Amino acid sequence: MGDKETMQIGRQFMQGRAFYEMMSQSDQAKGLPNPPLGNEITGEITELPSFETVVTQPDYTTLLDTRRSERVYNDVPMSQEQLAFMLWSIQGVQMYRAANRIAVLRPVPSGGARHAFELYAAVRSVQGLRPGLYRYAPLQNVGEKRVSLEFIKPLEDHAASITAMLSGQSFAAKAAVVLFLSCVPYRCEWRYASASHRLMLMDAGHVGQNAMLSATALGLGSCCFAAFDQDVCDQTIGLDGTNEFTLYAVSVGECPKVS
Amino acid sequence: MGDKETMQIGRQFMQGRAFYEMMSQSDQAKGLPNPPLGNEITGEITELPSFETVVTQPDYTTLLDTRRSERVYNDVPMSQEQLAFMLWSIQGVQMYRAANRIAVLRPVPSGGARHAFELYAAVRSVQGLRPGLYRYAPLQNVGEKRVSLEFIKPLEDHAASITAMLSGQSFAAKAAVVLFLSCVPYRCEWRYASASHRLMLMDAGHVGQNAMLSATALGLGSCCFAAFDQDVCDQTIGLDGTNEFTLYAVSVGECPKVS
Repeated sequence: MGDKETMQIGRQFMQGRAFYEMMSQSDQAKGLPNPPLGNEITGEITELPSFETVVTQPDYTTLLDTRRSERVYNDVPMSQEQLAFMLWSIQGVQMYRAANRIAVLRPVPSGGARHAFELYAAVRSVQGLRPGLYRYAPLQNVGEKRVSLEFIKPLEDHAASITAMLSGQSFAAKAAVVLFLSCVPYRCEWRYASASHRLMLMDAGHVGQNAMLSATALGLGSCCFAAFDQDVCDQTIGLDGTNEFTLYAVSVGECPKVS
Repeated sequence: MGDKETMQIGRQFMQGRAFYEMMSQSDQAKGLPNPPLGNEITGEITELPSFETVVTQPDYTTLLDTRRSERVYNDVPMSQEQLAFMLWSIQGVQMYRAANRIAVLRPVPSGGARHAFELYAAVRSVQGLRPGLYRYAPLQNVGEKRVSLEFIKPLEDHAASITAMLSGQSFAAKAAVVLFLSCVPYRCEWRYASASHRLMLMDAGHVGQNAMLSATALGLGSCCFAAFDQDVCDQTIGLDGTNEFTLYAVSVGECPKVS
């Protein structure tokens, strides 16, 4: 396949042609049941302390002015409050959209309120928190300014794991935390069928923008990644690569420029 | 092609496999010149007034708490200052990334700082501004808190145009402004080749999130659209659908719930 043809396929994928026709063939249109709003919790839950007073730079215009991708991190731990704010601001569940509880509203919009994501935190250095891989469990605290984390597993060698996951971008291994957003595609495909995939990529951008503004609001630096090793990320996090796979990553930590 | 196969193709498109291999085949890797940072300006330029004091809700956490997709708009014009803040916060150019001026930094991150977008405003009702279609010209004001608009053309029947562009979602025709983000794919393909297309979709989400937070900061309501009529949008804006095409839209205006 030539270069031009490959580019043309990519461009077509990005476009919104036949959206409603594709949607009309969805499992929702066929009357199939709504998939679960979040993954099942099987691990130990830790509740983080309140983040209500943790933001040090609350002014939105200043955030727009000062957010930059930061790739150098100090060896300083984040607080649990800072981690809690990051997670809530990205994927917190503010309310059920309707009494039937088949959709939720979060600090980011999502096509059809599908929110086909899970959010993992690879913790290197957060005060008082055992290092390792956690999953955010926002359905534990609907409508609350509280954050619950599910412990997934230790990461044997944090620096080596992160560097391999991010295709050699070793600077991220020095960040206090690296967040990994995964996609659970059927949550969106149920409603939008083959129109889902471009929607979920846009939704990942909504999520990423909040992550970076929130890091700036905390006086921290961040950097987002769309380039990573798909297989290594999926295997390390424990995803099957088909029904759930890594979609986006953000490193967060104190850094010389920002602090 | 069966449902499952179609879904599998979509899921694979979303994934980051072979990113660096794809990038190694780019025109940049072949030594071809950097494409222009923005479209050429051929129309009349209007400079909008300063937006420095227009934000009424500056607190970031409050924005996260209160932003919702709003689909009912009052018949109240926006101010030019409000429009200016919206545009700057989405795609303003804050600086050149390096002395050679082949990349710029904006209030949103973009893979490789490619920023493969143009931003159009379909103006229905902005105080003192002729209704019609404009393009934001951020390279006119690099590093300034100023916004220049290029007039593209009148829209003969605003309500009919917007409703057709957005596949019948007529509520948006009552918004003071509908913003249309277009994609100029070669700006990203030059560096990332076939890895570009998922990046640009994520970048559109970065842009959209700022748009919605900014509307909330102005006391306005907004709604984002990934479902639209690709051909009608492209034809109405005047895009060829291949080298530039519509990618995302956001309606903005005063609304009963927010004001």
